[in-house]
Amino acid sequence: MRVVLVDVRNPLNIGAAARAMSNFGFRHLRVVNPYDVAFEGARSAVGAADVLASAEKYETIAEAVADCSLVVGTTAVGPRDLQHPIQRLEAGATLIRAHLSFVCDRASVSDHSADAGGACALMFGSEKYGLSNKDMSHCHWLMRIPTREEHFSMNLGQAVAICLYELIRDSAATPEPEKGSPASAAEVERIHETLLTALRASGYPKMNTSDTFEGAVRRLVVRLRLQSGDAEFLLGMLRQMVWRMKTKE
Amino acid sequence: MRVVLVDVRNPLNIGAAARAMSNFGFRHLRVVNPYDVAFEGARSAVGAADVLASAEKYETIAEAVADCSLVVGTTAVGPRDLQHPIQRLEAGATLIRAHLSFVCDRASVSDHSADAGGACALMFGSEKYGLSNKDMSHCHWLMRIPTREEHFSMNLGQAVAICLYELIRDSAATPEPEKGSPASAAEVERIHETLLTALRASGYPKMNTSDTFEGAVRRLVVRLRLQSGDAEFLLGMLRQMVWRMKTKE
Repeated sequence: MRVVLVDVRNPLNIGAAARAMSNFGFRHLRVVNPYDVAFEGARSAVGAADVLASAEKYETIAEAVADCSLVVGTTAVGPRDLQHPIQRLEAGATLIRAHLSFVCDRASVSDHSADAGGACALMFGSEKYGLSNKDMSHCHWLMRIPTREEHFSMNLGQAVAICLYELIRDSAATPEPEKGSPASAAEVERIHETLLTALRASGYPKMNTSDTFEGAVRRLVVRLRLQSGDAEFLLGMLRQMVWRMKTKE
Repeated sequence: MRVVLVDVRNPLNIGAAARAMSNFGFRHLRVVNPYDVAFEGARSAVGAADVLASAEKYETIAEAVADCSLVVGTTAVGPRDLQHPIQRLEAGATLIRAHLSFVCDRASVSDHSADAGGACALMFGSEKYGLSNKDMSHCHWLMRIPTREEHFSMNLGQAVAICLYELIRDSAATPEPEKGSPASAAEVERIHETLLTALRASGYPKMNTSDTFEGAVRRLVVRLRLQSGDAEFLLGMLRQMVWRMKTKE
């Protein structure tokens, strides 16, 4: 993957793009026609030193994407009539991943898939105007981040970060189970009993309703779905309170 | 959803968070203990005026999340020993969406799900230190963006943008088919014939190998997978070249 920034003017944005690249493990940054001052200024961005140090500067888009066999432009869908197919980011990232793995499969005998012209360029335009129609004529297709129609213009650094995140996200990731083990029924029962003892000691007014009330307390304790360690922690607190209340008597 | 920024110091970051919220349709920004200057400075951020104008300022996290029934903290997994369950963003977002739709279902008789305490807070810490352990003690669980281990510290505005994007992304989005209709076999055949005519007119050296060569040219044209309009466009170019070459003879 090559990230190509075209006509970008703000050094903070070049730095932010580089930082997101580093966060997500992308290395090849190319800048086309930056203000020199902007490009130099970006080199101080936090945590992006490696990416910025190896960033390459080009005069034209044609040169910047010469070794790429897939060129994708990004756009905030605006009023312009686009001549290109346009994909939502979720779907576009799937296409890009498919392209890259196809290229890698074919290049698996050698380690030079990029040298073989199999790279993909992901292109971003200037902060103010995005990519021009001429810039886009280098692209196979365009990609858009699914924003609100009323506010589709994104900050450049954020747009780069979101596109790269979508490329590396793992759609198979599932929620982690909670750490620790749930409390056993015996632990829950000890808490239930100690809580009843504490309530009796405190003079809690509804105690006399007996069985019904004890059932309600047990259901409350069960609903807490306590972890084993937490059950012990809570039991210690309750016992201390019981001790204090009985001592005070 | 409430986006809660804790101890954030840089006005650009508050502005960037607000802009991403506006891009993705989130309205409720809450800031806990911002530098006053920072908070005021943010109000000039591009395209975030509505979100910033209605942003609320709190002294403590407890107050900022009081109406929320799910509190999620974000963290760059670092060396710290975390006491909380931690979810990758992809999975965490699924849990948050499940929580919100559960709350909405229960509140469907009224329009006040938020008033009923069903909101979810997504909390981000300061640029330098993130959320402290004390801050995290307000959270039900934590969420992390899947970055490289070697560079897990993200820019705050980018982190907010990525989390919100993940919440609104459509996992069912599929690639758009290309616009236009593919060229018919008849159009492809016309291009094939005209290309042969052009090659003959140009004195192309391999013409004599006949059938084999004509087959190779047809396969080339078929592989182009031309759109109908493009086939016509290309045919016009070829005819013009044929005309020029024959006229020159």
